[in-house]
Amino acid sequence: MTDTPTRPTGTIAPVVPLNTEQLALVPLGLDAVHLTAGFWGEWQRANREITAPHALHWLEQDGAIDAFRRVRSGTPLDSKARPSLWFSDSDVYKALEGLSWDLGNQKHEAFTATIAELTKTIADAQDADGYINTFVQEGNGERWSRLGWSHEMYCIGHLVQAAVAHKRTTGSDELLRIARAAADRLVSEFGQGRRHGLDGHPEIEMALVELYRLTGERSYLELTEQFIDERGRGTISTEDGPFDSEYYQDATPVRDEQTTVGHAVRAVYLLCGVVDLYTETGEPALLEAAVRQWEAMTSTKTYLNGAVGSRIEGEAFGDPYELPPDLVYGETCATIGVIMLSWRLLLVTGESRFADSIERALFNLLAASTSIGRDSFFYSNPAQRRTLRRAAPAGERAPRSDAPGTRPAWFVCTCCPPNILRTIASLSAYVSTTDRSGVQIHQYIPSTIDVFTPAGAVSLQLDTEYPLNGAIRLQVLTTPDSAWSLSLRQPAWADTAPVRVNGEPASTATRNGYLVVSRTWAVGDAVELDLPVAPRFTVMHPKVDAVHGQVAIERGPIVYAFESTDQDTGVDLNSVEVLVHEPVRERYFDDFLGQPSVVLELAGVQRDDPGQELAWAPYEIEAAQPRRRVTLTAIPYPLWANRGPSVMRIFSPASSS
Amino acid sequence: MTDTPTRPTGTIAPVVPLNTEQLALVPLGLDAVHLTAGFWGEWQRANREITAPHALHWLEQDGAIDAFRRVRSGTPLDSKARPSLWFSDSDVYKALEGLSWDLGNQKHEAFTATIAELTKTIADAQDADGYINTFVQEGNGERWSRLGWSHEMYCIGHLVQAAVAHKRTTGSDELLRIARAAADRLVSEFGQGRRHGLDGHPEIEMALVELYRLTGERSYLELTEQFIDERGRGTISTEDGPFDSEYYQDATPVRDEQTTVGHAVRAVYLLCGVVDLYTETGEPALLEAAVRQWEAMTSTKTYLNGAVGSRIEGEAFGDPYELPPDLVYGETCATIGVIMLSWRLLLVTGESRFADSIERALFNLLAASTSIGRDSFFYSNPAQRRTLRRAAPAGERAPRSDAPGTRPAWFVCTCCPPNILRTIASLSAYVSTTDRSGVQIHQYIPSTIDVFTPAGAVSLQLDTEYPLNGAIRLQVLTTPDSAWSLSLRQPAWADTAPVRVNGEPASTATRNGYLVVSRTWAVGDAVELDLPVAPRFTVMHPKVDAVHGQVAIERGPIVYAFESTDQDTGVDLNSVEVLVHEPVRERYFDDFLGQPSVVLELAGVQRDDPGQELAWAPYEIEAAQPRRRVTLTAIPYPLWANRGPSVMRIFSPASSS
Repeated sequence: MTDTPTRPTGTIAPVVPLNTEQLALVPLGLDAVHLTAGFWGEWQRANREITAPHALHWLEQDGAIDAFRRVRSGTPLDSKARPSLWFSDSDVYKALEGLSWDLGNQKHEAFTATIAELTKTIADAQDADGYINTFVQEGNGERWSRLGWSHEMYCIGHLVQAAVAHKRTTGSDELLRIARAAADRLVSEFGQGRRHGLDGHPEIEMALVELYRLTGERSYLELTEQFIDERGRGTISTEDGPFDSEYYQDATPVRDEQTTVGHAVRAVYLLCGVVDLYTETGEPALLEAAVRQWEAMTSTKTYLNGAVGSRIEGEAFGDPYELPPDLVYGETCATIGVIMLSWRLLLVTGESRFADSIERALFNLLAASTSIGRDSFFYSNPAQRRTLRRAAPAGERAPRSDAPGTRPAWFVCTCCPPNILRTIASLSAYVSTTDRSGVQIHQYIPSTIDVFTPAGAVSLQLDTEYPLNGAIRLQVLTTPDSAWSLSLRQPAWADTAPVRVNGEPASTATRNGYLVVSRTWAVGDAVELDLPVAPRFTVMHPKVDAVHGQVAIERGPIVYAFESTDQDTGVDLNSVEVLVHEPVRERYFDDFLGQPSVVLELAGVQRDDPGQELAWAPYEIEAAQPRRRVTLTAIPYPLWANRGPSVMRIFSPASSS
Repeated sequence: MTDTPTRPTGTIAPVVPLNTEQLALVPLGLDAVHLTAGFWGEWQRANREITAPHALHWLEQDGAIDAFRRVRSGTPLDSKARPSLWFSDSDVYKALEGLSWDLGNQKHEAFTATIAELTKTIADAQDADGYINTFVQEGNGERWSRLGWSHEMYCIGHLVQAAVAHKRTTGSDELLRIARAAADRLVSEFGQGRRHGLDGHPEIEMALVELYRLTGERSYLELTEQFIDERGRGTISTEDGPFDSEYYQDATPVRDEQTTVGHAVRAVYLLCGVVDLYTETGEPALLEAAVRQWEAMTSTKTYLNGAVGSRIEGEAFGDPYELPPDLVYGETCATIGVIMLSWRLLLVTGESRFADSIERALFNLLAASTSIGRDSFFYSNPAQRRTLRRAAPAGERAPRSDAPGTRPAWFVCTCCPPNILRTIASLSAYVSTTDRSGVQIHQYIPSTIDVFTPAGAVSLQLDTEYPLNGAIRLQVLTTPDSAWSLSLRQPAWADTAPVRVNGEPASTATRNGYLVVSRTWAVGDAVELDLPVAPRFTVMHPKVDAVHGQVAIERGPIVYAFESTDQDTGVDLNSVEVLVHEPVRERYFDDFLGQPSVVLELAGVQRDDPGQELAWAPYEIEAAQPRRRVTLTAIPYPLWANRGPSVMRIFSPASSS
């Protein structure tokens, strides 16, 4: 895109390309979009008031912050005595990033003070030459000697992202100075091929591109390019960990890879860096590779709830269509990575499918990852639960990443909670963009939007109870005299999406999956979009054997689930079928688990346990088992597991009668 | 049982109870039963000629044998340099056990020499006080200090089992002396509650009972009782490994446990020790606990192919009905453990369901675990394979337990191959038993059987091509003049099982699932049993969502699988359905992968890929996808993956039209 309306480099947001040639859409920052109310606005407030202090408490209690103090205190601990994991620096940085982004939403003196104190602590721990990694600095091995497993660059990447956020929201150079020194150390060691080596966990790639964007220093961009070029050639030693090259995305060069493979978070983080590099350099093969892998992931390796990564072993992508709901791993960080990747692809393509992907991830898996109290979290996100698992002990770190019956407060490997923190704090950035024609609305989240279009300044107010109902209302608060276009995403699941302007049906063009209303606007103009959120049955691709012949129920962007807590006596969710030809009843609640919600009632049949001695039976006998009619209650999947341990399922066998 | 016909303590077999009060059936030894021909006889020969030297080669190459030499050579290695795992002693012992059992089948000078040499090597490594564990002796930690993870008692247990086998087949005390010294060291340290502690991996329990049976030394039995009593009370430190108490069967006392939980091999090995203890002490709660857990496992946690242990994480049992074929772990050792457990329960109950369990395990998972060349092995056994995985590199150890496209020659953690070796070497012991009434036939494997019944000496010859066809023929070679009963197992899958004697229909009683023919026999009498091996469709329990609405095809005891290698062009096994109302065609081959086999042809439909962009679709659209008719070819599941990497499935969606 040439003729860019605004220089996005000043934007207060994640992903602010310096080179706008590749951009179809230009991002808006936290200064341009403010969440006003509703589910997401409330969550952003709770993220600030509950999740942030909760995270800081745990990072202190776990010794993750203390690790920085110990480096300079002269009392190094050996690795065994270290209370948090060897890459816990990254958790501190991600929390810092979250606090920093939130300063872009509103002033917060306590956050400012906390950031200043943490910045001082980190600065004190940094070596004179810029190197920083508390685990190595405490005497655990040599610098850069176990790159496949050490996460040294991964941690620096998160430091850089925190610093970029802090600089963008506050203008301060305090954290940025530390991050640049660390990045400069990396460039000195590895830049221009002086040394070959890759971090086992991608992250540094996108971080260095963002640092380049902020500073204009090309050596950062070049180092990302070097890392991306070197990857996929068996560069990473598989001796340091139990996994093979595919786990590290190091078996096939990214430009040649056909699908997402290996550790899911690593795979999508790498692709974020690939798109970032493409955005700055314009190399078509990079975008093609990222889109190809995104398509393969979305069409063959994504669960209906937005989870990716089937396999607990290696926290990894499985084979295509290997999507068993009872054994899905579905790490929260992986879906956050999908949001980050889809956002980057949305910016360069302008295609609604990427915003659809973000909507599914946000409204389902991300929402389900966090308790309604916003102080406990799933690392792994079940899509089916057969038994009442033990509740997570209150106030304890979960030792493992598999999901107990309720959400743990914190984890030994605690990448997910601070990742949620930074995502919610920066969520406003994902709502809207601008381009030459005007303004695009990607997510229907109550907000105010202030943007400079080529036609002039535009202010909009978005009000909606979506997805409680499908009525989305935009009011024009400020507009230039000349015409501009308002583009509204039509989700792929929405067959119809009528638009009215000031009560009258509006004529719309469709472009890239968006309904485009072009006109000369007046202050006070009201645009109404009506999305059909009536419940609908959904099936997975026929190759997904695990739910073959089964249906899920969705309502608007929300996936529904049956939770045992809501069922009548005598209903055993492990052996029900849904009567797909009978009506679904919607029941509205003002306050269901703290929010207005629609609960669904469906007709179903219960198959009582045949009580057989073996796990199998002849086909003829099984087909003749009796069924009895029951009513099944479905709640929004994101609200499950907030009332103690439960049995839960999203997909259920479909029955015609 | 009182009035025991033979003193089984002299029997050359695994599991030879000293106290016969609890026995419904008395085991026969390798001196009483000889495999003569067919699939199992051939395998036993190949086990001797191919698998045994293959295992010895790898144990030498891996340093597992050398570990014993190093202990006394003065050149200890630290743990990092150790080429095999810290519990590799057990692999050497299991191989020794396999060689020893095979000496019960026939003389073998090379085996005798190898055993003598290995015995000398092990003896030299043993400490003066009886302790032996090369990993600890090499300087890796203190004795008994990390029992949850060290496998010290586990290794000693396998030493004891090898010694028991060697003593029973040869009468030699050479290996037994070492094993007793090690066991006596254990008793000195832990006996009579002098010290509390449990090995994280059960095995010592059954081994000590067998040693008690052989020696009459009660302290061994008492120590087993102590270990079983102490387990299930959080005794094992969870600090040494990444797992919780349930993984170690240490969360609930075994007498209270309702189902099999945690690491699958550990769970079934523990239950073997529990039944062994019951057999000697007669404590009813022990048998009840073992039967209860076996029933829960068999009815809710066993795959059709005999696999147990759904989860790769922790190599563990999953929730009830959590049996996804595409992600099943299904460790070979776990199914071998099921065979060992079912055998013990068969001896004490006389019920055919336990012999059915052994048949399913032997003819399916165990057979599939090993290549037809008998020199490569699956550790984890897939029940579905969606993609062409890389072939295992020839001549290399597999670093991980997940299954590549073909069977690896050996593993870093190589528990399974020597377990297969010892199982096949001692297979004759599982064919037949005796009791007051006469002789029972549990497995229809061509063999000769010589047994002393209360009526007198009986010799039988069993000839059959089963399960190629259902005709099983027993000829009486020796018989006393007085009447005795021949009991023939009627598999649960066999609706009918007509018996003829000398060509005439015989009247049979049914007891415990066995058809009992009681008469006064004459030499030359011929008994013919006809089992209905026609192909049949089987479904899993309706709670097994992963294959809900899907069918498998079985023929006799054999589970069939579709392998891509055999399919017509245009058939994609990832999206076929089986037409369950159409006939199944049987095609007989004299030589299919080295053995006479029946291959099945079924009518099916192919659903071509709808090519959708998302992994999901609206229900109505999906239901209307076109299908085209195809022919599907199914082969015996145990023969899959012998022709290079392939796509494979056991269960497929059932279609009526």
